[in-house]
Amino acid sequence: MAERSGQMWMATLAWRGTAYAGWQIQPNAPTIQGALEAAVAAMCGLDGAIPVSATGRTDAGVHAKMQIIGFRLPVERTPHQVVSGINHHTASDISCLQAQMMPDDFSPRRWARGKLYRYRILNRKPRCPFRAEFVWHMRTALDVQAMSLAIPTLVGQHDFSSFRAAGCSANTTVRTIQAARCRRSEDDELILEFEGHGFLRHQVRIMAGTLVDIGLGRRSASEMEDILAAQDRAAAGQTAPAQGLTLVSVQMGDGPG
Amino acid sequence: MAERSGQMWMATLAWRGTAYAGWQIQPNAPTIQGALEAAVAAMCGLDGAIPVSATGRTDAGVHAKMQIIGFRLPVERTPHQVVSGINHHTASDISCLQAQMMPDDFSPRRWARGKLYRYRILNRKPRCPFRAEFVWHMRTALDVQAMSLAIPTLVGQHDFSSFRAAGCSANTTVRTIQAARCRRSEDDELILEFEGHGFLRHQVRIMAGTLVDIGLGRRSASEMEDILAAQDRAAAGQTAPAQGLTLVSVQMGDGPG
Repeated sequence: MAERSGQMWMATLAWRGTAYAGWQIQPNAPTIQGALEAAVAAMCGLDGAIPVSATGRTDAGVHAKMQIIGFRLPVERTPHQVVSGINHHTASDISCLQAQMMPDDFSPRRWARGKLYRYRILNRKPRCPFRAEFVWHMRTALDVQAMSLAIPTLVGQHDFSSFRAAGCSANTTVRTIQAARCRRSEDDELILEFEGHGFLRHQVRIMAGTLVDIGLGRRSASEMEDILAAQDRAAAGQTAPAQGLTLVSVQMGDGPG
Repeated sequence: MAERSGQMWMATLAWRGTAYAGWQIQPNAPTIQGALEAAVAAMCGLDGAIPVSATGRTDAGVHAKMQIIGFRLPVERTPHQVVSGINHHTASDISCLQAQMMPDDFSPRRWARGKLYRYRILNRKPRCPFRAEFVWHMRTALDVQAMSLAIPTLVGQHDFSSFRAAGCSANTTVRTIQAARCRRSEDDELILEFEGHGFLRHQVRIMAGTLVDIGLGRRSASEMEDILAAQDRAAAGQTAPAQGLTLVSVQMGDGPG
């Protein structure tokens, strides 16, 4: 492989996903990747784009409190210049929190060890003007006990075919969930959290939607085992809306995992 | 005074102030009061507006986690119908949380006993995509110790002429602040809180701006006493931007105070 020139960088980002068609570049739609590739080029005084990769894709409307990206800069910059350069050339719904130089073989996707996703449900009758874009608003009280009974079934290594979007192109449907939690917050939210190395397309949102079906009493907690075993998308519940989902953090290793 | 017909109601509201020119009705600008007067009329099947009053005004861009309003309904409604009616006829940045019937002499302003205002400062270098509309972003680290030293000077009954906007039309400039606090939050915010029965126009924002000047080292904490004693707007500091301010709660009595 020919060595490419320039310094490899890593940066930590946060974004509000509301106005974007997800991470991955698309023609004729604003994307996080597109915004960043243009910003990184602009901060180097270049027109066009400099390729930027992340630890993985996120859906349209999904938020990130922390995502790790990598890119190669053709010019010399300090970490401070990279952070303020990205922030200067992106809108206020994207924020670069940190940047550092990395070894030449750095790859966000291959160096990532785990991710924590949070799904927020505002579970009360009145809407909240401050959280409309960040939660799924469910007016009916959810049975947290039933959801808590069902959630451990998802932990461990399983074939998650039942929780995979129709258009998912992953080679294997086997994934490992390290931890899964369900709790009520003090401000009327029901919060679901999932930790794992990687997830299938829509997996977290289909798991959340299926757990909500259980919380609504449409299904019993004990059905979760059958849903997982079915290896069939039709067995699982609804796909929870993207706006409730946030990539909370990414754990990085010090080399390919 | 002629008795007006209809049932008196009280409702609890929350709103995101970003899109509004404040509480009070204005021609040619969206206001919270205007939105509510139209919504209350619409929920009664009427065109136009039904008068709605609050415990006080809030500035353009200021948020409310809780404000109390009062209005008289010419038709019979249940509390549930009032809550869902207001929510149905307002945008998602306003939320009615609760409603109840009140005695005929109910007046939000005269029955209010105290208010808690919170001023949020995001005090770190990078911006936050989730809080841009709710905080004042200050990149320079503030000296919380100096601010905490200055803040007790504001507590008690004082003439707050130094902290009054030029256009303020209050009859008296004497106000009582029951409590004032300053603390760092775990998510990089510096939070100021002020409790009092009533405040002059821009008073909380000028107090916040003056405290920030002290936190930046532009003034010393001991100057706060002289600023208060000067009874002159020119003695105090900058007016902090409206977006950082939230009316957190209102305490109501069971009759005129």
